[in-house]
Amino acid sequence: MSFRSGADQYWWGDRVEEDQMTDQPDPAAIAAAYIEAWARRDLATVARCLAEKVVFESPRTRVVGIDAVVDELDRFAATVTEVRIRSVVGDDRSAMIMYEMDTVGLGTLRAVDHLVVEAGRITSDILVFDTYKLRLLAPL
Amino acid sequence: MSFRSGADQYWWGDRVEEDQMTDQPDPAAIAAAYIEAWARRDLATVARCLAEKVVFESPRTRVVGIDAVVDELDRFAATVTEVRIRSVVGDDRSAMIMYEMDTVGLGTLRAVDHLVVEAGRITSDILVFDTYKLRLLAPL
Repeated sequence: MSFRSGADQYWWGDRVEEDQMTDQPDPAAIAAAYIEAWARRDLATVARCLAEKVVFESPRTRVVGIDAVVDELDRFAATVTEVRIRSVVGDDRSAMIMYEMDTVGLGTLRAVDHLVVEAGRITSDILVFDTYKLRLLAPL
Repeated sequence: MSFRSGADQYWWGDRVEEDQMTDQPDPAAIAAAYIEAWARRDLATVARCLAEKVVFESPRTRVVGIDAVVDELDRFAATVTEVRIRSVVGDDRSAMIMYEMDTVGLGTLRAVDHLVVEAGRITSDILVFDTYKLRLLAPL
């Protein structure tokens, strides 16, 4: 899967500068690193973004713990050919990141992850996207 | 429709304080005011949040201009009985707001709006939610 950061709404550079002023990256920077790692299927980096007892909730499932979440994310990534991050915003404890995924068989899907970050690790990831096309192919 | 702000992730009070230090509310404050007004079907306030040439994009439609966007939002709100804002984050030009809607016939839907704000008005609203249940009832 290739990764391409999207347009002027994606400002990783600024975030990196902010990181240097604090002990750890802020939630928006972690959100970008997390989705970027997921997009290139770098599961080691994805796992490093997550807290041990992370809770992942999507329209289809809810899983708990690093291993289960990484498995779920990897399964989902298998059909994704490209990810374009459209926007990342956050505060000192949470972030939301919007991106578009080109998929095999389902066209382009738009998604948002809402992340809660504690001590530099993601403790909660709520994924919102339109499952309509997906469920037509694989009803759940 | 009743409106209830959700839990500790919703910090309208802090945002109002920030507003007093600047000429106009920041995008996160506008996002909260916009969804709150929509939830109580206060269309005059919804309209005041919007720029003249606002673009609204959802999984089902794309409409342009205040009147068309307000009409579309009002139509969608007709089936919603309660809105709970879960999180609002933003920077100086954009915001994302996540909320849950209790609906007549479709259960609870989770949604995120990504807003771009210029000069205190929303110029772009991209809505992401799972249309699966909706499309089963009314295919588009």
